[in-house]
Amino acid sequence: MGGARFMGAGVMSQGAQPALKTAGLIIIGDEILSGRTRDRNVQTLAVWLGELSVYVKEVRIIPDDRAVIVETVRTFADAFDYVFTSGGIGPTDDDITSEAVAAAVGRPHRLHQEAYDILNAYYGEEEFTLARQRMAQMPEGAGLIDNPVSKAPAFFVGPIFVLPGIPIILEAMLPGIAHRISGGPKVHIVTISVPMVEGEFAPLMAEISDMFPVVSIGSYPFLRAGQLGLSAVFRSTDAAAVE
Amino acid sequence: MGGARFMGAGVMSQGAQPALKTAGLIIIGDEILSGRTRDRNVQTLAVWLGELSVYVKEVRIIPDDRAVIVETVRTFADAFDYVFTSGGIGPTDDDITSEAVAAAVGRPHRLHQEAYDILNAYYGEEEFTLARQRMAQMPEGAGLIDNPVSKAPAFFVGPIFVLPGIPIILEAMLPGIAHRISGGPKVHIVTISVPMVEGEFAPLMAEISDMFPVVSIGSYPFLRAGQLGLSAVFRSTDAAAVE
Repeated sequence: MGGARFMGAGVMSQGAQPALKTAGLIIIGDEILSGRTRDRNVQTLAVWLGELSVYVKEVRIIPDDRAVIVETVRTFADAFDYVFTSGGIGPTDDDITSEAVAAAVGRPHRLHQEAYDILNAYYGEEEFTLARQRMAQMPEGAGLIDNPVSKAPAFFVGPIFVLPGIPIILEAMLPGIAHRISGGPKVHIVTISVPMVEGEFAPLMAEISDMFPVVSIGSYPFLRAGQLGLSAVFRSTDAAAVE
Repeated sequence: MGGARFMGAGVMSQGAQPALKTAGLIIIGDEILSGRTRDRNVQTLAVWLGELSVYVKEVRIIPDDRAVIVETVRTFADAFDYVFTSGGIGPTDDDITSEAVAAAVGRPHRLHQEAYDILNAYYGEEEFTLARQRMAQMPEGAGLIDNPVSKAPAFFVGPIFVLPGIPIILEAMLPGIAHRISGGPKVHIVTISVPMVEGEFAPLMAEISDMFPVVSIGSYPFLRAGQLGLSAVFRSTDAAAVE
């Protein structure tokens, strides 16, 4: 049940094929870990990155804990081409992502003048409280990410993109950073649904796999209206083989 | 945005308070990482465990990659009281979770006679193919988890619970294992929604936090019908302080 046989990026990139680009996602927030909120950002980011030919290799959902954030950002920055974090960049004391990312990349955490000016113009002198001024503190050299919904900018440091947790704001920010993502070779995907259970499909899957070694095959069972079936997903950088 | 100031289990367990029980969740499956499927099992497990007074400290979503599964199971088994995996226990070649868990705990992967008998009785001699017989292979000494939906049992090895990926089947299995989970002290939770943005709430939150040091406070902004607001969540093992 579940599972798939996809060749990992490592396998696919062997031989003549160019390396796939990879990403790791870090979802920061106790509200997801407690089950209070169901995460939506993993799917949003994974689909968007897939369209840019970047493949998500791992996701970690972690608490608002500085040491854990620092360690996870470092691990992911070493392992993947891109890192995306979501959550913990608001004005309250518990919003520690920005400072933790600065520590992870070994840069000072400082006032970002352009971010300060954007927030100051938006709130006005009176409303631009000390708490809100925290949102203008960023790792040195951070580039801003435009926020079309509620102004407060997110940021990136090299290949690490630090995004908010609110799904509607995160989604609105993605078009503004697409040009910063350089994808690998396009992976062609064909999905078919068949009224078979995995036990029946298994021998067929092994046969197809032998015939088309450059194609990775995943089998995803589902239970729909009381009927067991499965989706077979075929993937390869070789479009003809997939068909 | 997002984030929270919850004292971690380590902090809460200091002093006279008994230690909280913790869990780590491992979601195994390329279909979640590709964005093809949105995970539902994290929230299901987190809410169910919270009711049993077990707190999810970390979630990892990982590919169907044996080395990654082995490493993640080992890391989580060392770090948390309970580990739950979801996905990769079906009959196809890509279902490698069971064998990887056996390797992670250093036990042989063998035919489980009771699981074999259940599957054999369900499918009948004819339909009980070699592929399906793979589902009766489990780490030595595994205990079975009853599957009220489609018979094929899941299993546990010590504090590691190996569950299927299909949400409806995973959910149906939980009542059968609740008695195996021994929770820590109950954490009392009060949530209020306020029509404030985080910048306004921040100073108030700091004040409340100083007044009630045994209470952890999280602030979760939301955007609902175009209105920004936030949920303030108060948590403590001390019920009176929370109120």
